[in-house]
Amino acid sequence: MDFDALFTDALDTLRREGNYRIFAELERAVGAFPQAKSHDANAPDEVTVWCSNDYLGMGQHAEVIAAMCDTAQACGTGAGGTRNISGNTHQHALLEAELADLHGKERALLFTSGYVSNWAALSTLGAKLPDAVILSDEKNHASMIEGIRHSKADKVIWRHNDPADLDRKLAALPVNATKIVAFESVYSMDGDICPMDEILDVAEAHGAMTYLDEVHAVGMYGPRGGGVSEARGLADRITLIEGTLGKAYGVMGGYVSGSAALCDFIRSFASGFIFTTALPPAVAAAARTSIAHLKQSDAERQRQRAQVAKLRARLDSLGIPHLQNDSHIIPVMIKDPVKCRQIADILMQDFGIYVQPINYPTVPKGTERLRFTPGPLHSDADIENLVQALAALWKRCALAHAVA
Amino acid sequence: MDFDALFTDALDTLRREGNYRIFAELERAVGAFPQAKSHDANAPDEVTVWCSNDYLGMGQHAEVIAAMCDTAQACGTGAGGTRNISGNTHQHALLEAELADLHGKERALLFTSGYVSNWAALSTLGAKLPDAVILSDEKNHASMIEGIRHSKADKVIWRHNDPADLDRKLAALPVNATKIVAFESVYSMDGDICPMDEILDVAEAHGAMTYLDEVHAVGMYGPRGGGVSEARGLADRITLIEGTLGKAYGVMGGYVSGSAALCDFIRSFASGFIFTTALPPAVAAAARTSIAHLKQSDAERQRQRAQVAKLRARLDSLGIPHLQNDSHIIPVMIKDPVKCRQIADILMQDFGIYVQPINYPTVPKGTERLRFTPGPLHSDADIENLVQALAALWKRCALAHAVA
Ligand SMILES: Cc1ncc(COP(=O)(O)O)c(C=O)c1O
Ligand SMILES: Cc1ncc(COP(=O)(O)O)c(C=O)c1O
Repeated sequence: MDFDALFTDALDTLRREGNYRIFAELERAVGAFPQAKSHDANAPDEVTVWCSNDYLGMGQHAEVIAAMCDTAQACGTGAGGTRNISGNTHQHALLEAELADLHGKERALLFTSGYVSNWAALSTLGAKLPDAVILSDEKNHASMIEGIRHSKADKVIWRHNDPADLDRKLAALPVNATKIVAFESVYSMDGDICPMDEILDVAEAHGAMTYLDEVHAVGMYGPRGGGVSEARGLADRITLIEGTLGKAYGVMGGYVSGSAALCDFIRSFASGFIFTTALPPAVAAAARTSIAHLKQSDAERQRQRAQVAKLRARLDSLGIPHLQNDSHIIPVMIKDPVKCRQIADILMQDFGIYVQPINYPTVPKGTERLRFTPGPLHSDADIENLVQALAALWKRCALAHAVA
Repeated sequence: MDFDALFTDALDTLRREGNYRIFAELERAVGAFPQAKSHDANAPDEVTVWCSNDYLGMGQHAEVIAAMCDTAQACGTGAGGTRNISGNTHQHALLEAELADLHGKERALLFTSGYVSNWAALSTLGAKLPDAVILSDEKNHASMIEGIRHSKADKVIWRHNDPADLDRKLAALPVNATKIVAFESVYSMDGDICPMDEILDVAEAHGAMTYLDEVHAVGMYGPRGGGVSEARGLADRITLIEGTLGKAYGVMGGYVSGSAALCDFIRSFASGFIFTTALPPAVAAAARTSIAHLKQSDAERQRQRAQVAKLRARLDSLGIPHLQNDSHIIPVMIKDPVKCRQIADILMQDFGIYVQPINYPTVPKGTERLRFTPGPLHSDADIENLVQALAALWKRCALAHAVA
C-alpha cells in the first residue's frame, strides 16, 4: 500500500483550504526579547515577535536562566526516569510545594506539559469516578476535550461562559452522578474571561466538582500570579486548578493543584503521569524561580497591562477593529485563512513583524485571526511600528475597517 | 459530594494490595553518577542508583550540560509557544535534522516526550487513515496502548514477539484495511528484544505499515546509536521509528521519524503535537549534542555491555536468578508486591542501594520485580556491593533461589 500517497492527499486538502501550516523559524536572543532572529528566507534577519505566549518575558529573566544552568551543572540535564523509577528529585518536590502554595492548595502534581496535565487528569477523573459526567464549556482547549473523550465518561457541553445553561444541564443529570464542571479562566483565542463566581455558585448548588484551566492566567492575574481565581478570591472554592509552566512562567511543564487526596489519586492512576520521564530538574528549578519571582514582583504585570492598554488605544484611534475583552490578548479578526496568511506574510516580509496567522484547527474555520500578545518588553516604539504597519496594510488590502 | 472520600477509598485499595507507590526523593550530582544524594529519612544520605534510565550517564556529560546552559543563556529558558505560534526555533530544526539522520529517514518530528509521541502519532494514524486496523504486540507500552485506544481504530492484539501469530492475524483482516503493525525493539520490563526481521517479513507480506518504538534502544544499539533497527540493518524497512530523548540521551522529549509525507501528516493533524508548548530550545540543544556524541563514540556502549555482562555473571555465580535476555536490562523476579517493596526498602536502608520495586500497573500483578540497569558509570566495586547485598538478603529473606 502506498502510504505516502494517503498522507499527501490529506495534506493537499489542507493546502487547498489554506489551512496548511508553515512554521516561522526563530532564534530568540536573551536581552533582545521581543526581538528575535529569523531563519526564514523571505523575512528580514531580525523580527519583532508579537504572538509569544512567554507573556511576561520570563524566559529571558536572569534568575530563571541561572536556575536552569546552575541546576543542570549540579544535577545534570535529565531526570533519568519516571517519577516512580528514579526520576523523582528534590527539585520536583520543591516545585510542587511552590505550586501548591501559589494556589493555596494542599498539594500540586507536576506533568510534562499543560496539555498532558489536562489530558491525564480529566481522563483519570472521568474514567475512575463512579458515574462521572463531565460538563465541558464548549470552547474548552483541545487538551481538555481529548482528556474527556479518552475518559469515556458521559460528556455534556454547555454554552460558552453561560452559567444559566450550565445550571439547566446540571439540573437534568441524575442526582447520584459524579459531576465535574470543566472550564477555563482566560480563553486564549478570544481573550475573554469566564464569570467564575457565577459558575462556582451553580456548580456548588448541584454538588459538582470544579476543574479550572488557568493556563493563560497564571503568573499574570492575582497579586501573586495565582490566576483569575486568586484575583477574584475564589481559589478555595475550586476543586482542581490546572496550569502551565510554559507560558507566563517562560519554561515548560504543567500541573494540577488541589487536595492531597485528589493529587495523590491522579498521581496513582493517571497513565500520562506514571509512564513518562519526569521533567528535567533544571526545568523544574527554572520554573520554580519564575513562579517565586512573580509571587513577589508585580512590575511585569503592571507593565504588561500598560502596554496592552496602549496597543488597544492605538488600534482604536486608527480604526483597526479588534475583539474587546478584559485580558492581555488582542485578537484582530480576519475570518479567512488565505487572507490571514497573506497579511501575516506581508507583516513579516515588509515590516519585520511576526504574528502567526491563527487558523483551523486552533480556531473554527471562518474565524481566522491575528492574535497579538503585548508584553512588558514591547516598547512604545514597538507598538507604534505595529499599528503603523497594520494601518498601512489595512489600506493596501482594502479590508473593510469593521471586520469584527 | 465528598470527593476526597472517593479518592481516599481508591488509594486505600492500592495500599491494601501493596500497590501504593512511594517515590524515592533523589538529588543526583554531576560527576558522582550513579551515586546520588537521598532526601528520604530512612535512607543513607548517599545511595547508588541501580534503576536509572539515563542508561549511559549522558545526563552528566560535560558537552550535553554545556549545550543546555549555553543555549539557555543565549535563547532563554522556554520556547514561548506551540511550534506553530512562535515556538518553532532553529534548535528544533537542527534537532529534527539530527534525528532524521540518526535513523536514515527523510524527516523527524519532535514531541514533548516519548509518551506523547506514541500517543499522538498512533492516535492520529489510527483515526485518520481509512479503515485503519492497528496490530499491537500484547506487551506494548502504555503510551502506545492509550494512543491506539484514543484513535478508535480497530485493534488486534498479537502474541508477544510472535511473528507467526501476527501473520495469522494479518491474514484474517480485509485486504483493503490500512494495517499498522505496532511493536517495540527492547521491551523494558523483561529486557527481551523482538525478532525484528521476521516481524518485518510478515508485515511486508501483508502490505502493512510498521511502527517501531525504539525508546529503550536508541543511543545504545547500533554503531551510531540508531537502535536495534540500525544494529540489524533494518531501519529502511520500517515505516516509522519512534524514540525518546529522556533515557539513553539523558535529557527529555520524544520523536517519530519516517518519510517527509508521514512526518508532515502527523505534524498537521496530531492534537498532541499541535496544541502544546514546544520543548525549550535549551533542551533541544542538549539532546542534539547527546545524539551527536553517541553517533561517533562507542565507548559508552562498550563499557555498558561490559558492566551488564559482569553483573549477570556475578548474579549467576551467587545463584541469584534473573531473567535472561539480550539487552542491558536485568530483571530479578520477586512476584509479590509486598515482598518486592520490602526487599527494595532493605537494600536502600541497610545498603544504600536504590532500586525501585516495579509493581502494578507498570507490570502485571504477580510479576513484581527488581529491575537493574547497569551502565558505563557503575564501577566493578558498585557491582560487587550490589551482588553482596543481594546475596545477604536472599539468605535473610530465605527466598527460594530459583524464583525466576
Ligand atoms: C487553555 C490551554 N490549556 C492547556 C494548554 C497546554 O499547555 P502546554 O502548552 O503547557 O502544553 C494550552 C496551550 O498550549 C491552552 O491554551
Ligand atoms: C517503551 C516505551 N515507550 C515510550 C515511553 C515514554 O517515553 P518518555 O519517557 O520519553 O515519555 C517509555 C517510558 O517512559 C517506554 O518504556
